Amino acid sequence: MGKVFDAAEVAQHNTSESCWVILYGKVYDVTDFLSSHPGGAKIILKLSGKDATEEYDPIHPPGVLEENLRPEALLGTVDENTLPKVEETPAAAEEEQKEGPPPMEWLLNLDEIEEVATKQVSRKAWAYYYSAADDKQSKRFNTEVYRSILLRPRVFVDCTKCDLTTTLLGHQLGMPIYVSPAAMARLGNPAGEAGIAEACRSFGAMQLISNSASMTPEQIVADAAPDQIFGWQIYVQSDRAKSVAMLARINKLPAIKFVVLTLDAPVPGKREDDERAGQVGPPPPPRGSLKTTDELKDGTPDVSKGGGVGLQLFAGTDPSLTWHETLPWLAQHTNLPIILKGLQTHEDAYLASLHGPQVKGIILSNHGGRALDTAPPAIHTLLEIRKYCPQVFDKLEVWVDGGVRRGTDVVKALALGARAVGIGRPALWGLAAGGVEGVKRTLQILSDETKTCMRLLGVERVDQLGPQYVNARVVEQQIYDGPSGLEDLRKAFKAKL
Amino acid sequence: MGKVFDAAEVAQHNTSESCWVILYGKVYDVTDFLSSHPGGAKIILKLSGKDATEEYDPIHPPGVLEENLRPEALLGTVDENTLPKVEETPAAAEEEQKEGPPPMEWLLNLDEIEEVATKQVSRKAWAYYYSAADDKQSKRFNTEVYRSILLRPRVFVDCTKCDLTTTLLGHQLGMPIYVSPAAMARLGNPAGEAGIAEACRSFGAMQLISNSASMTPEQIVADAAPDQIFGWQIYVQSDRAKSVAMLARINKLPAIKFVVLTLDAPVPGKREDDERAGQVGPPPPPRGSLKTTDELKDGTPDVSKGGGVGLQLFAGTDPSLTWHETLPWLAQHTNLPIILKGLQTHEDAYLASLHGPQVKGIILSNHGGRALDTAPPAIHTLLEIRKYCPQVFDKLEVWVDGGVRRGTDVVKALALGARAVGIGRPALWGLAAGGVEGVKRTLQILSDETKTCMRLLGVERVDQLGPQYVNARVVEQQIYDGPSGLEDLRKAFKAKL
Amino acid sequence: MGKVFDAAEVAQHNTSESCWVILYGKVYDVTDFLSSHPGGAKIILKLSGKDATEEYDPIHPPGVLEENLRPEALLGTVDENTLPKVEETPAAAEEEQKEGPPPMEWLLNLDEIEEVATKQVSRKAWAYYYSAADDKQSKRFNTEVYRSILLRPRVFVDCTKCDLTTTLLGHQLGMPIYVSPAAMARLGNPAGEAGIAEACRSFGAMQLISNSASMTPEQIVADAAPDQIFGWQIYVQSDRAKSVAMLARINKLPAIKFVVLTLDAPVPGKREDDERAGQVGPPPPPRGSLKTTDELKDGTPDVSKGGGVGLQLFAGTDPSLTWHETLPWLAQHTNLPIILKGLQTHEDAYLASLHGPQVKGIILSNHGGRALDTAPPAIHTLLEIRKYCPQVFDKLEVWVDGGVRRGTDVVKALALGARAVGIGRPALWGLAAGGVEGVKRTLQILSDETKTCMRLLGVERVDQLGPQYVNARVVEQQIYDGPSGLEDLRKAFKAKL
Amino acid sequence: MGKVFDAAEVAQHNTSESCWVILYGKVYDVTDFLSSHPGGAKIILKLSGKDATEEYDPIHPPGVLEENLRPEALLGTVDENTLPKVEETPAAAEEEQKEGPPPMEWLLNLDEIEEVATKQVSRKAWAYYYSAADDKQSKRFNTEVYRSILLRPRVFVDCTKCDLTTTLLGHQLGMPIYVSPAAMARLGNPAGEAGIAEACRSFGAMQLISNSASMTPEQIVADAAPDQIFGWQIYVQSDRAKSVAMLARINKLPAIKFVVLTLDAPVPGKREDDERAGQVGPPPPPRGSLKTTDELKDGTPDVSKGGGVGLQLFAGTDPSLTWHETLPWLAQHTNLPIILKGLQTHEDAYLASLHGPQVKGIILSNHGGRALDTAPPAIHTLLEIRKYCPQVFDKLEVWVDGGVRRGTDVVKALALGARAVGIGRPALWGLAAGGVEGVKRTLQILSDETKTCMRLLGVERVDQLGPQYVNARVVEQQIYDGPSGLEDLRKAFKAKL
Repeated sequence: MGKVFDAAEVAQHNTSESCWVILYGKVYDVTDFLSSHPGGAKIILKLSGKDATEEYDPIHPPGVLEENLRPEALLGTVDENTLPKVEETPAAAEEEQKEGPPPMEWLLNLDEIEEVATKQVSRKAWAYYYSAADDKQSKRFNTEVYRSILLRPRVFVDCTKCDLTTTLLGHQLGMPIYVSPAAMARLGNPAGEAGIAEACRSFGAMQLISNSASMTPEQIVADAAPDQIFGWQIYVQSDRAKSVAMLARINKLPAIKFVVLTLDAPVPGKREDDERAGQVGPPPPPRGSLKTTDELKDGTPDVSKGGGVGLQLFAGTDPSLTWHETLPWLAQHTNLPIILKGLQTHEDAYLASLHGPQVKGIILSNHGGRALDTAPPAIHTLLEIRKYCPQVFDKLEVWVDGGVRRGTDVVKALALGARAVGIGRPALWGLAAGGVEGVKRTLQILSDETKTCMRLLGVERVDQLGPQYVNARVVEQQIYDGPSGLEDLRKAFKAKL
Repeated sequence: MGKVFDAAEVAQHNTSESCWVILYGKVYDVTDFLSSHPGGAKIILKLSGKDATEEYDPIHPPGVLEENLRPEALLGTVDENTLPKVEETPAAAEEEQKEGPPPMEWLLNLDEIEEVATKQVSRKAWAYYYSAADDKQSKRFNTEVYRSILLRPRVFVDCTKCDLTTTLLGHQLGMPIYVSPAAMARLGNPAGEAGIAEACRSFGAMQLISNSASMTPEQIVADAAPDQIFGWQIYVQSDRAKSVAMLARINKLPAIKFVVLTLDAPVPGKREDDERAGQVGPPPPPRGSLKTTDELKDGTPDVSKGGGVGLQLFAGTDPSLTWHETLPWLAQHTNLPIILKGLQTHEDAYLASLHGPQVKGIILSNHGGRALDTAPPAIHTLLEIRKYCPQVFDKLEVWVDGGVRRGTDVVKALALGARAVGIGRPALWGLAAGGVEGVKRTLQILSDETKTCMRLLGVERVDQLGPQYVNARVVEQQIYDGPSGLEDLRKAFKAKL
Repeated sequence: MGKVFDAAEVAQHNTSESCWVILYGKVYDVTDFLSSHPGGAKIILKLSGKDATEEYDPIHPPGVLEENLRPEALLGTVDENTLPKVEETPAAAEEEQKEGPPPMEWLLNLDEIEEVATKQVSRKAWAYYYSAADDKQSKRFNTEVYRSILLRPRVFVDCTKCDLTTTLLGHQLGMPIYVSPAAMARLGNPAGEAGIAEACRSFGAMQLISNSASMTPEQIVADAAPDQIFGWQIYVQSDRAKSVAMLARINKLPAIKFVVLTLDAPVPGKREDDERAGQVGPPPPPRGSLKTTDELKDGTPDVSKGGGVGLQLFAGTDPSLTWHETLPWLAQHTNLPIILKGLQTHEDAYLASLHGPQVKGIILSNHGGRALDTAPPAIHTLLEIRKYCPQVFDKLEVWVDGGVRRGTDVVKALALGARAVGIGRPALWGLAAGGVEGVKRTLQILSDETKTCMRLLGVERVDQLGPQYVNARVVEQQIYDGPSGLEDLRKAFKAKL
Repeated sequence: MGKVFDAAEVAQHNTSESCWVILYGKVYDVTDFLSSHPGGAKIILKLSGKDATEEYDPIHPPGVLEENLRPEALLGTVDENTLPKVEETPAAAEEEQKEGPPPMEWLLNLDEIEEVATKQVSRKAWAYYYSAADDKQSKRFNTEVYRSILLRPRVFVDCTKCDLTTTLLGHQLGMPIYVSPAAMARLGNPAGEAGIAEACRSFGAMQLISNSASMTPEQIVADAAPDQIFGWQIYVQSDRAKSVAMLARINKLPAIKFVVLTLDAPVPGKREDDERAGQVGPPPPPRGSLKTTDELKDGTPDVSKGGGVGLQLFAGTDPSLTWHETLPWLAQHTNLPIILKGLQTHEDAYLASLHGPQVKGIILSNHGGRALDTAPPAIHTLLEIRKYCPQVFDKLEVWVDGGVRRGTDVVKALALGARAVGIGRPALWGLAAGGVEGVKRTLQILSDETKTCMRLLGVERVDQLGPQYVNARVVEQQIYDGPSGLEDLRKAFKAKL
């Protein structure tokens, strides 16, 4: 490790035969690692022979390097004086002059925060956060469905007091709003997921840690308050040993109270904004012959072509999970309660309710519209459960996420049976707009709006909200109306026991 | 009071330790008053040491100063020669050159009047009048719901005559259209609420006086015609003595025939346009640490941060009103009939109908969309009452407001059971566009349109309008369709007797 | 009449005390006529002392002058040399250079024809033709309702032949499309209503002559083919003698086969575009005190203020028509069959069906959206009749108009039970775009489109069209669904016999 | 044929009396052919005396010339040196500089491909491909209907594998997506229909060959893989001998497995974009007197006026087809299975199901919205069949086309009962954007999207898709709800046997 390299020498190792990169001033030989990089070889080769720190840092939590490279891969350090000076391109200069964000206090709603964040972040970060599947119809519908539900305010009710506290899985929380497991927070702001944790702490809000967080779980929960609550999201890896190792780490972190198993994205959705951002910059991909169906038949998402951040993060995810294999496997490796995320039909909600007590809750979610376009918004699934199998609410906690932008949205979801409401992009936009203060502002706005809404409805406590406070008739006329087959599901489940 | 101050001396008293202001040429020490100003200390401090008359005048009725300051607070007068000359900024010069409004006769509909008014008034006034809660969806829906109702004109009916006269609470009126209690009229035009009263007089129209009027009730009714009818709107104050004092004043004004108790805004809605207008101008608020949920938990709207006109007007309002406490309290302090304003569910309409004979009427209203966004328009509540408890129409007069912009809107509301229809913003826009003549033009347009509509329907008198003249099927498919629980309400009411 | 006046002398008679005008080179004293001008005194006074020919000509059919002025009102002729030369203003010059319309054959649909016409005609003509009541919602809905109906094409049907011929009231016609009684054709093109008649002749199409045509009925039918069919529209005048005189003239014209009694506009609608066009030009109306409700209570539309063409045409119309007075009166003055125009509810359609055999047909119409805004489109009424009282179709011919722009619209109306479909504005736009050729092009387009549609549906003859060829479900969900009270109507009708 | 002409001499034969044209360097006398040209005489006369190769080539397959002209019509060759040099107009120069398309790999969805294609092709080609009937409402609705259907993803299903293979009419295929019979491929790219065939080969996709292909069937299938499947579309000609001759050629091509009989366009729709493109260029058509209804009564589309490509292609098509005449006639001339294309009602689907075994399948189609505007999208007909006569699915294969732009659209159609889904314009846009690679990219995108969708639904094989995977409630509320008359159809069918 004592060896000091000249940048020019490193620069010569820029092929798949000999591929070196500089990271944090150190020189690594990653030739052997090329084929096993979850994000594909291509993206490494693009940076081969160069200092890759700026690209690498915001999307890799510490420790990843050490976990994946043999010790001898570290060849030495680079002589920083030999590195090419970063030329200030006119674009970069302009970038410099970019105004900072306005005071967070001036931002009145979540749309304004997104607007400010859009101006603050890189195109790559924007594309990753903003993107959704295909034509972004589910993303749009997630928000619009709330607007088609009307509220039913009662009058002459003392609304002096309003209390947002609630309990989730038996834990006391300051509000029924939590931060969903959104990946790559450092892409938007260096405070990263730990910054979101800091903001949550101020509000007693729960945070779900993404499997693809840009910081380690240990970092994120490091400054947790004694009563602060976290969940940890798992994407089970095809290489199960990796998942087992992660679970072992999670089991040791007392702030993490449960595991969230994501089910709505077993394969990656097609997020075109994200993919387009990955296309930027010369030279364009060669106009080669295209892959045919047969070559792609194996089911592994092909990241060798590049693709967006989303596609790269997906590499390694196991698409073969099932009720009967995965839940028992998970029970072997953790005693934490399980929350199933991404249920989109009443049938699956019902099935989950048969899997207690291991499964303690479900999150109705279409992955923020990022997986399957024209998948139903969580409110549809919530209304489906109310219609076909309301007993699910007695057996499981039902949480929802997707499209929440106003306190009235929070109240509507709670009134229809949700116990908690997650926000994904809004937390990232808040972080991107103003760091920790931006996330706080996001939570404060939602908290204030939720309380104002509850007061104007004549409701003091979260547990008093019920369907009598909303008119969801327009949505009720749109939800699934076919046969449910619950009886068959029940029988099949019993038969397998 | 004989002392004459130099402006420079006054200017030195610009802190919370010693805070002087100049109003109408007089110098006041308002240091002690800072903490009890309903609109918050901040807005006074911004003007401390200066002549605050221009800011103060249009939003405070006469007498407020005297009521709230001890006599010794009046220190003397200012030497007007020492006041800084108002520099004519280019913007101000441009303002000067602003064309006056066109002749009111040229304005053909209420939208055109709003357009003209928008150009005439200050940004602050525009923001206060125009604003509505959150995304202004209820405001928009208020108008759109009328457009989705079709009329059913009958032919071969003699429509030579058309008579808009009606009776409300037993009083004869020239038209079933009244002016809702809209605050801060002088912000738009110096004629203020008394100007609205003058216009109403010409048309035999009823006016409801806002609790936050920019003139005193005595001023507003001063020139009332012998048969002119007013109602007075009360926001009950947490300091009940203030409300009792106001009621005592109202009881002495024979032109005021009833009290309107506003229930749809126990806490202020979030009117972002209004708040944004309050943000204008340097310096921006310091980027301080934000309040967390806990600090805001007491339920008092926090006006110390500034906020818009709407938020300031709200200060002091009692959010703890209930059927069982407030109505008896009100009966102790006035014998006037009570109208409950802001009902938005058939349940509350039914409850109100049990509280006769004190309660003589209800106003279905979502506060012009200014309180809770996605609250239902009055037409929804009207249809809910028709569906669940039509007997309410026999026990109470049912009035509606919100979104009325055309005579056809008036006719639709009346046909569905409303006895009268209120206009809020249109009266203010009329005043702002052309003073008294502007309000007259507003009422004339609505009157003409309403009569044209009735004639084309084949209807001569207001009391002949009924549901057979409208096709509200599209709206009927959207209103609440859940259980009503009226029986439980009835039992609970009886039990408490 | 021998006297020749100097223009300067005429110019001095420009007050209500002495009011002269020049028309077609003759000088008239119209002082006595001022108060009885159906269009109001104001519009004459504006032209007093001047040559009014250009304004007068396109909206008055020949003979009107002689009918309304005493012989001694004709004072003599004007010396044309003394008339002021028309100065060519830059605007006029530009007008001159205006390109003529493209060849009519190039225009592919009715929207393109309207577009071309819009560029060809004066603002006044455009405003009169284009305008509709209030917010033009019924006008828009008239067209949109057709777009929400789907067709149901049958395949494997021999569609070699397609025949648009039909019979209306027993008369053979070339197509089931007729020209509605649209007024003021010469405003758009000098060919006027006679030009429309010429175009109709080529297609065997029926024409209804407007009561306010800019040519006399005699002129319009002068060149009629032996088998050409006309109807004459009557607006009954308050001065019944005028209507009786007109009916006497009509009775003498064999080409006119029936009388159309318009019922959907007993008082004028509020057509703001038209009124705005009437406002153009200096000086603006004085900013006087506005009329209050009481002054307008008599029910006579007040045209003294000016107003648009539509309002002026309305003057003198009797708003007091009823089933029991007007129909017998009409029977006294003509033996022609009666068609009632402007029915908008199934109730009135049913009532009409009780008034045979005098009443032979009804036209479902909301007056092109020009009378009452948010009145239902004819298709609504057609579907109401199908739902509540289909027997009406056996007793009366049911025609419809309003919003038809495509052959598919024609087919949809016929399939749902209409025997004929009227076009109003399209005929005027055609005339304005290209005179007689423009109207022919309009009829040709509709004819071609209608035949193409029928062929693609697998339908050869008009009488084979039926509801099985359309899917009107979306509209069916929007039409009136309340009680009908037909039984009460029947009883009341019988009682009055 | 030895004679060599001077271009100047050819140029003199430019009238209907003597009409010569140059094609591929040869000189033809086409005077006698003028009256029998299916595309009308006018378009030939426009090119008479000139080199017509550039106009002729992309829309006529080889052999057409020889089939239609007598041998003596070939007069000789032209001296190429005497031909006028093509002047490079500035527009042409600009055209030259037009950038080529981006690498196909960069195009992420079908809309982007259309966008690129729009820039690559001539206005004429764009207009022909893009155009649809009238207001293009059916075209728009074809796409929108898919967006109003939601998906119902099931979770915890192993989605490692996903297999798009299927069988159609017993033939094994790589995907359930086929290329519809879209005409005039060489107008967009010289690779033409054979290029589409090449792309299909890579994906195992089926191709239907248009009756109006710009290449011969023999050329198109020339390079077919052993297991590659084609269908051939027939528009039966009024001159049946021509159709019989074509069928004889088809019968000899083993790659063609079935005949598709198009029924949804017995007469041409009105495609205004296409017609407008045909209008371009001086001189404009003379402003002659227009044809009246009577002159057009014979039912033959009149192409003498010019019109678009679509109208010209239509010439000669027999509009008199019927169930009882045409199917037996077809059986006489081919033993291939018959697919009926263009069914748009459940009635006709039911009728088709009675015509087995000759009729083996039906294609629900509104001809891409190009025939009858406001005809229902295929999804409507699919849902109608499900509702009224689901037994049809057991008797026939049901394919659909129109509006498919995403893999989710494909999955929705399959889930609702379609066995295969056709794409028309997308294949042409792909070809126009990038030739064979462009079509491959189109198929690859659809294949990838379809597989991603199936995986995210938890479905491995095409035959597992069913209605439980979609929520089509919004569409179900819009489809036909009237009587079906299936019993009458059955009886009538039996009676004719």
